Amino acid sequence: MRHSVEELEKIIYAYLPKEKGYASRCISAMNYAFCAGGKRIRPLMMLLAYEMYAGEDRAQARPVDCFMAAIEMIHTYSLIHDDLPALDNDDLRRGKPTVHVAYDEVTAILAGDALLNYAFFTAAKAFSLCPGDQKVERALSVLTEKPGLDGMLGGQVLDCELTGKPIGEEELAFIYENKTSALIECALLCGAILGGADDHEITLLETIGSCVGLAFQVRDDILDVEGDAASLGKPIGSDERNDKYTYVTMHGMEAAKAYVSDMTARAMDALSKLSVKDTQAKEELKELLLSLVERDR
Amino acid sequence: MRHSVEELEKIIYAYLPKEKGYASRCISAMNYAFCAGGKRIRPLMMLLAYEMYAGEDRAQARPVDCFMAAIEMIHTYSLIHDDLPALDNDDLRRGKPTVHVAYDEVTAILAGDALLNYAFFTAAKAFSLCPGDQKVERALSVLTEKPGLDGMLGGQVLDCELTGKPIGEEELAFIYENKTSALIECALLCGAILGGADDHEITLLETIGSCVGLAFQVRDDILDVEGDAASLGKPIGSDERNDKYTYVTMHGMEAAKAYVSDMTARAMDALSKLSVKDTQAKEELKELLLSLVERDR
Repeated sequence: MRHSVEELEKIIYAYLPKEKGYASRCISAMNYAFCAGGKRIRPLMMLLAYEMYAGEDRAQARPVDCFMAAIEMIHTYSLIHDDLPALDNDDLRRGKPTVHVAYDEVTAILAGDALLNYAFFTAAKAFSLCPGDQKVERALSVLTEKPGLDGMLGGQVLDCELTGKPIGEEELAFIYENKTSALIECALLCGAILGGADDHEITLLETIGSCVGLAFQVRDDILDVEGDAASLGKPIGSDERNDKYTYVTMHGMEAAKAYVSDMTARAMDALSKLSVKDTQAKEELKELLLSLVERDR
Repeated sequence: MRHSVEELEKIIYAYLPKEKGYASRCISAMNYAFCAGGKRIRPLMMLLAYEMYAGEDRAQARPVDCFMAAIEMIHTYSLIHDDLPALDNDDLRRGKPTVHVAYDEVTAILAGDALLNYAFFTAAKAFSLCPGDQKVERALSVLTEKPGLDGMLGGQVLDCELTGKPIGEEELAFIYENKTSALIECALLCGAILGGADDHEITLLETIGSCVGLAFQVRDDILDVEGDAASLGKPIGSDERNDKYTYVTMHGMEAAKAYVSDMTARAMDALSKLSVKDTQAKEELKELLLSLVERDR
């Protein structure tokens, strides 16, 4: 692959706040959560989407770097708040104590708030790199929309409200589309917009993000039943224990696997229609997306 | 006064999300908190700061309208999270049940997150009004900085950490400067930047915001001792009950009143040096700032 996790982390870690001053404990908690691992798939998707249209240009500071850090901050804030006692009450995340366990509940609430705020502060740094550039303005608008009420947070809200309650197919689809797909769409769209993609390409990428997100989430449900706790870094069977309705509990394992295949095929069909400058980046994006929906951890 | 609270609320309410769809309970909680009253001083300061430099232009949709709604959303999110059981555990705010009481704790956490996110989404709408306008880009950068770690949230973090513990003068000053002044500075700066103020004016306005914020906060401490619970809409004596160190408990009532006078004088001195287009707006801003530091509720 063109980009290693180490390279991506070097780029995005540079935007983290320094652990000093009176708020240092909160900053330490932010950075603890941010640096706790993870596959960095959203920044990687964003970078490949950017390179598809912009071509490679590693020499200069690029606006996409700010946005890569920003989307990972948004993803991290959502995990910190999701794990809180009032929500999922999870003690472990990626095999390590969650923030409210490693620190305390107040710090977890405020560190999540701080990361969400810092994400937009970080993305706005792109304005200094390219003042007056409407690509940056448009990407920032997407970055403020997809993680919010009409996206990730909307899905999270319904997911919390319905935990332990009967849930319909339409509601489950809404949760998956918003809680999972929205941020993947956000990554692809921000990268492509910053790289100079036109509206036709953006529409295709939105379809790709939506389908891959749905496949990714159902694959997650499958792994919660069939996966290996050690390689996943978290216990399996948690959905059943928490009375969570998932695609698997609702439709069965066979249908879930067929759904993943179908969504993957739709994503690959849209991908094949993209018209990009850097075809190698497109191939790498394709490999990345396939690895996500076929993953076993 | 040129602008009534009703007029301001008409402007900012227009940006609230509609209570429909699967996230409607969360949206209802956001709007409940946002519409629970308050003096709307931050949007009003922002509008007057804007008008001082831009002159009045009520006919068109102005970028400052988006920012006025955004800063009030940020203020509201901070109140919702501040009131949470893990933080101040307050049941009443402006005489009404707080969000985690009127709804529930999960909804309060997510509604706060949603308001913070929605604030930046709302401010970013200004890009469609004036694409490529660096004034909007610069104002958005300020809007992402002042409420965050190097501003309001940093003060909140230290305030939470030190509740019930011994606290030094320097720490108290840090809390007041950040928790209270930062958002007032933010309001003045965003308005002035959008109106076209230059760097010299911005520096003066930052001083004004800082001094007024400090005077406003110490006035709050004074009212918690000498105020009237009914007109304040909240019980008095809560700082003492919660073992909160304030300027009053640390330095005594007389010193607190002298400090308010001193900060007010400094703010008025800086204000007199402003060089604006609309001198009537400047007079109104002066009246507003004086009313805040001399208020009895």
